[in-house]
Amino acid sequence: MNPAKSESTPRLASSGNQSGDQPPGRESQDMLPGLSVSSPPPSPHGKSTALDRWLMRTMLKQAGNPEIEVVLWDESVITTSPVPPTVRAHIHNRSTLYKLLIDPSLYFGDGYTQGLIEVEGGLVAFNEAIDCCTHVVDTKHFYRDRLRSSLAWLKRNTIDAARSNIHHHYDIGNDFYQLWLDEQLAYTCAYFADPEMSLEEAQIAKMDHVCRKAGLKSGDTVVEAGCGWGALALHMARNYGVKVRAYNISREQLAYARDRAQREGLSQQVEFVEDDWRNITGTYDAFVSVGMLEHVGLKNYEQLGEVISRCLNPQGRGLIHSIGCNSPRTLDSWTTHRIFPGAHVPSLSEMMQIFEPQKFSVLDVENLRLHYAVTLEHWLQRYEQHLDQVSEMFDEKFIRTWRLYLSASVAAFRSGSLQLFQVVFTNGDNNEIPWTRANLYADEREQVQAK
Amino acid sequence: MNPAKSESTPRLASSGNQSGDQPPGRESQDMLPGLSVSSPPPSPHGKSTALDRWLMRTMLKQAGNPEIEVVLWDESVITTSPVPPTVRAHIHNRSTLYKLLIDPSLYFGDGYTQGLIEVEGGLVAFNEAIDCCTHVVDTKHFYRDRLRSSLAWLKRNTIDAARSNIHHHYDIGNDFYQLWLDEQLAYTCAYFADPEMSLEEAQIAKMDHVCRKAGLKSGDTVVEAGCGWGALALHMARNYGVKVRAYNISREQLAYARDRAQREGLSQQVEFVEDDWRNITGTYDAFVSVGMLEHVGLKNYEQLGEVISRCLNPQGRGLIHSIGCNSPRTLDSWTTHRIFPGAHVPSLSEMMQIFEPQKFSVLDVENLRLHYAVTLEHWLQRYEQHLDQVSEMFDEKFIRTWRLYLSASVAAFRSGSLQLFQVVFTNGDNNEIPWTRANLYADEREQVQAK
Repeated sequence: MNPAKSESTPRLASSGNQSGDQPPGRESQDMLPGLSVSSPPPSPHGKSTALDRWLMRTMLKQAGNPEIEVVLWDESVITTSPVPPTVRAHIHNRSTLYKLLIDPSLYFGDGYTQGLIEVEGGLVAFNEAIDCCTHVVDTKHFYRDRLRSSLAWLKRNTIDAARSNIHHHYDIGNDFYQLWLDEQLAYTCAYFADPEMSLEEAQIAKMDHVCRKAGLKSGDTVVEAGCGWGALALHMARNYGVKVRAYNISREQLAYARDRAQREGLSQQVEFVEDDWRNITGTYDAFVSVGMLEHVGLKNYEQLGEVISRCLNPQGRGLIHSIGCNSPRTLDSWTTHRIFPGAHVPSLSEMMQIFEPQKFSVLDVENLRLHYAVTLEHWLQRYEQHLDQVSEMFDEKFIRTWRLYLSASVAAFRSGSLQLFQVVFTNGDNNEIPWTRANLYADEREQVQAK
Repeated sequence: MNPAKSESTPRLASSGNQSGDQPPGRESQDMLPGLSVSSPPPSPHGKSTALDRWLMRTMLKQAGNPEIEVVLWDESVITTSPVPPTVRAHIHNRSTLYKLLIDPSLYFGDGYTQGLIEVEGGLVAFNEAIDCCTHVVDTKHFYRDRLRSSLAWLKRNTIDAARSNIHHHYDIGNDFYQLWLDEQLAYTCAYFADPEMSLEEAQIAKMDHVCRKAGLKSGDTVVEAGCGWGALALHMARNYGVKVRAYNISREQLAYARDRAQREGLSQQVEFVEDDWRNITGTYDAFVSVGMLEHVGLKNYEQLGEVISRCLNPQGRGLIHSIGCNSPRTLDSWTTHRIFPGAHVPSLSEMMQIFEPQKFSVLDVENLRLHYAVTLEHWLQRYEQHLDQVSEMFDEKFIRTWRLYLSASVAAFRSGSLQLFQVVFTNGDNNEIPWTRANLYADEREQVQAK
């Protein structure tokens, strides 16, 4: 707690006290060692008013007093943080401030991507400071959030809407994704069995972890719902001797996947189908879906369960890998408007709407939250390393949008505002289930043996 | 499919057809090789009527055509099984049959314990045949069951009711439990890390599995809610160097636990408290509860979450081990009336009512259903081996009640009508969480190394 800070804070809050208008730029810089703020030109937006500052303070209090400070266009510094903040946002004009009142998430994102908001001290750290405040346990909020999440149920992702949503994010050019994903283009949480693994190794470890959990054995048939660029489908066929039918509605991803299957001589073993999960036909020994559930929409969970039930052999096993959260809530509005239209991240109770009506037996749930934080750090780092190439493809607004998206995602998984669940399940009457989970860690046993 | 059977079946069903009244005892015996039925004395209850038989058939159809046959008091054999059944129930009088119509579960149990119903072909197999039919997926049933389960919410297990419920089952004499539990009196699902383990070894393996999942380290403080005869509390203190406060409302169990702590010189490390989980005070590095949730009552889950949230240190970890089921439903009425008053077995979505309002992060869910089937087989076997001693303590009705309870439980876990969930959780913002679950399988690695 910095007493100078806590003294300055009420002064700024007291409306009508003009002394609070003195830009405390110097003072705030003392509290942010290591941050350099270039001296700005005189603001064309005039001085901030007591109302502006009061509104900003109120917003920060509403957000749970995050450990940040906000610098307005006239260099007024506002914070409600109980400790000296190490990150700072600059809001460059009044209209951006007032938009934040209407929808903080959407207009922070839009403001940032348009350059009307700048962040010092690190975009990840800034987002983490905000996210950490959402963890305050408050049962009132639980019920409000649950209600909000239930309303998300109304948004039905029809087959057409799903196609357009997926196109929005995934069909912007494979070249772009190749700049910052691993070499196999696995665009989902990796599994760092050993924290020292490279991203490439961790994506392979994830695929093996999934295959073991799904209990794959040579000759099995597998259906994959939402196969991305095909990395997992090809891995399963190549390394586990299974036959895979992989569904996806992103045309660009499928073209890439088919081409790769052809090049690797796996076209006979892996069939890539351009269709929605609702249209899956046939029966299989395993159902896997890695990173698709986020796009399914809560309203369709029960239907997804019906599709799985229809296509899973009596002793088949299923695995769903999805971003989730600790209690029902909706994704922030910037993400759903600008990044993933139609997306929903379920709590575990919501995920059970897939399994419980079908009386599936949930065998195993693993939370890999911190693995996703590390995965995203790798992606963000590679993204920044390839900015030159990105800027040849896209404009500045796009660059800032994706920087914010990746940074905010690192923060969300680090702070615990997002989770990553892998759920393994089977038919309720299937006794052909693994006795323990020790087999999942067989490699690590082999490593111990080898040492 | 036995054509003779399927022909005889409609004949029995057609009301008023007197030919159906011929007792087909001989025919049915041919279909049950290995079963010997002693020739009964002429029934004092007269012949069964076409209505009796039609009602019995209707009941079997309603139950999903289990692979059983029912022999009425006049030797009429009724079945709707599509294959030749290998188990058979004898119903000795009409009033028992009519009671079954009202509440099949309650009056099957009561009829069996009173000797008015006898079972051939094995009590476990008979129960399993019934349970297997409940697995037919039917979304209508899902909603009916969910409604029923929600109504269970109305039954509030107050502190007084809880005390009386627990007394009913657990305070019937430690001597009795010593006859058929393992030597440490662990009355919960064991963990057969190796299927060849003895019950004693598997109970120790379970305790170690729990301690590892809870991340115990020397010097930690642990609170245990519902500690039974104290085996886990003492194990944690002895083998993990932690300080334990263990709550229980069963006086007989606590007396035993305290005495054992004294004898083992662990009284300084383990405090056994005779009180309800609602009255837990203090803060701890770990919360564990093994086999108590079944007695908490759905309505109190949110309160349980509040208690845990209050008593768990910021980086504390919790583990709840409980019988559960694949979708919301109520326990059968015989079990809730005669064995576990006030009990409820939750589905995972129901269990989330503990965790989600507190924004706990669920780290790990493991389903140990088949381990409980094996545990119960051990208990049942030991129970039967000690019948002489049991009958010195209790009457025949008690003996049959406990035989049915243990047998039906084996069947329920084998058939998948019951599950065993271990859920590990922590505060939503705690990043001091295990990186992978490999440490849970460290022993097995050591064994591999040793070989």
